[in-house]
Amino acid sequence: MISPVCPAPIATRDTILLGHGSGGKLSAELLRDVFLPAFANPVLAKLEDQASLEIGGTRLAFTTDSFVVKPLFFRGGDIGSLAVHGTVNDLAVGGAIPRFLSAAFILEEGFPVAGLRRIAGSMAAAAARAGVTIVTGDTKVVERGSGDGVYINTAGIGLLREGVRLSAGLAQPGDAVILSGSIGDHGIAILSQREGLELETDIASDSAALNTLVDAMFAAAGAQAIRAMRDPTRGGVASTLNEIAEQSAVGIEIDERAIVIHSAVRGACELLGLDPLYVANEGKLVAIVARESAETIVDAMRRHPLGAGAGVIGRVAGDRPGMVTMRTLFGTSRIVDMLAGDQLPRIC
Amino acid sequence: MISPVCPAPIATRDTILLGHGSGGKLSAELLRDVFLPAFANPVLAKLEDQASLEIGGTRLAFTTDSFVVKPLFFRGGDIGSLAVHGTVNDLAVGGAIPRFLSAAFILEEGFPVAGLRRIAGSMAAAAARAGVTIVTGDTKVVERGSGDGVYINTAGIGLLREGVRLSAGLAQPGDAVILSGSIGDHGIAILSQREGLELETDIASDSAALNTLVDAMFAAAGAQAIRAMRDPTRGGVASTLNEIAEQSAVGIEIDERAIVIHSAVRGACELLGLDPLYVANEGKLVAIVARESAETIVDAMRRHPLGAGAGVIGRVAGDRPGMVTMRTLFGTSRIVDMLAGDQLPRIC
Repeated sequence: MISPVCPAPIATRDTILLGHGSGGKLSAELLRDVFLPAFANPVLAKLEDQASLEIGGTRLAFTTDSFVVKPLFFRGGDIGSLAVHGTVNDLAVGGAIPRFLSAAFILEEGFPVAGLRRIAGSMAAAAARAGVTIVTGDTKVVERGSGDGVYINTAGIGLLREGVRLSAGLAQPGDAVILSGSIGDHGIAILSQREGLELETDIASDSAALNTLVDAMFAAAGAQAIRAMRDPTRGGVASTLNEIAEQSAVGIEIDERAIVIHSAVRGACELLGLDPLYVANEGKLVAIVARESAETIVDAMRRHPLGAGAGVIGRVAGDRPGMVTMRTLFGTSRIVDMLAGDQLPRIC
Repeated sequence: MISPVCPAPIATRDTILLGHGSGGKLSAELLRDVFLPAFANPVLAKLEDQASLEIGGTRLAFTTDSFVVKPLFFRGGDIGSLAVHGTVNDLAVGGAIPRFLSAAFILEEGFPVAGLRRIAGSMAAAAARAGVTIVTGDTKVVERGSGDGVYINTAGIGLLREGVRLSAGLAQPGDAVILSGSIGDHGIAILSQREGLELETDIASDSAALNTLVDAMFAAAGAQAIRAMRDPTRGGVASTLNEIAEQSAVGIEIDERAIVIHSAVRGACELLGLDPLYVANEGKLVAIVARESAETIVDAMRRHPLGAGAGVIGRVAGDRPGMVTMRTLFGTSRIVDMLAGDQLPRIC
């Protein structure tokens, strides 16, 4: 029998691919095909990076992330600080005030205890700076060859701000799209170090806790002006904007001229054939805000060290729902699709 | 120079050993030497299996565990159900009503999606039975050879019962020691399957969610009668009792005749040279309770399917603080020390 349509690539979808962990289309497919049907419940179905819960009359945010970054130590941070920042940021962009973290380690037999001590110290310092407390933990050890040094999971609990309701599904036509600073630094820092690239300029990860930046945004604009926030990690700014466009059923138009990219990052991306819009960030946020509050919010962000490069990079449109388009430096317009495969594995 | 004392085994303590994940002395050493100094805070310092927190006026329990069990599928469960039960139980024995779980997966490239679907289904079923909701999650993928199929982390949030305060530091001389049923089933089920042992009787893991059993105990005895509860997982009943004896600075005396061990488990332990007191359980609890409430609590437990084999196995004593002793079947007494090395790696 001849199939009338091109068959789905069954062979590749029967087993887990590196791309299933990339935060792009394959990750979304795994979520939709395996996890959502199994765990079906309204909180998970919202597809936010954190769950909003009510327990004992208190509104909380709850989130988790595992970290498998390679190398473990990189310019601008290590797996420990990254594991704290990542979970703090998922709570912060959900409108919560991060409070408590768990820390669970999967260690490979033979890993140096001195390295673990350094990672723990880095986690502790990151937690102290972010104002969160690591209150519970776990350690497992796997045999040599069944791990890769250290994997860390952090879960976090935050207190949801009164009156704040953020969701990737709440973007409205006319809203402004804000980006907090330069893109691609984390991904390129990791990749250049992993591949031993000799780049002209040293690129450091932007890994940082964004909760005080978010505090400044709410302090400036109140609870209502911000519709959605995300930290564009795996899959980069392009994937984040696509998720918002899809979940809000709106179009998003961005302007390439407004997007800050360090020249060393731009150079590395050209060298490696990467699009910086898809490269991971670990200390940046994207916010969709009411147009009339955009300037106030950007001003407040620019007064914060982590928002010095903040700006409006685009707007939400009513047409072309689910689609992200970009006006390029050359004045043309192109579609910015979701990351299809796996641009950079083990980036966080 | 000749050292006047036997030097510490520096070589082995400079790197992570499988025993660091065993829940015994090496685990405690890693916690004391690396994690506690780094993360120093009063909640973590309590060394409970769950953190007790107050947030927004609500008292919560928060806990995390990673699961690296091998094989992934075993008689009586799989890594998915185990990951739900383990975290539910840590909340339950902390006196909390388990409510919400996170689920984070580290997948190895090439793992069958069908296997992942089966694991997710098993998690969902376990969560439904335990009355908890999986509300947030994460998926990472590592290259072939950098993992071992699937590792799962679950973190959990529970609502602390009004007026309940449990701690391994609250055992008092005169208290009764209750064990909820037979010991060693989980560890022997895993080990026999892993090693391909042909045992006379099929041994199934006891993996189960204990929260409704704990509900029955509180319903029978009120908030005050139970001092401490633990689920004796890695390191077994012996390690759990040692932790309580040490943290409460009391002696604990148990009676071997009162401890239920299935004959197939006993036989396997003899064959393998294992002491069942150190073998992991995943559906049992140890409780330290006021002597006058012990009978009421045991009666209530026996009416619950997971407590049918419950009984008083010993008592808390004022002398020999920090020490656990056992009156053996032969009428002699022996010290039950904490697990020194790693009896069974990758048991959970």
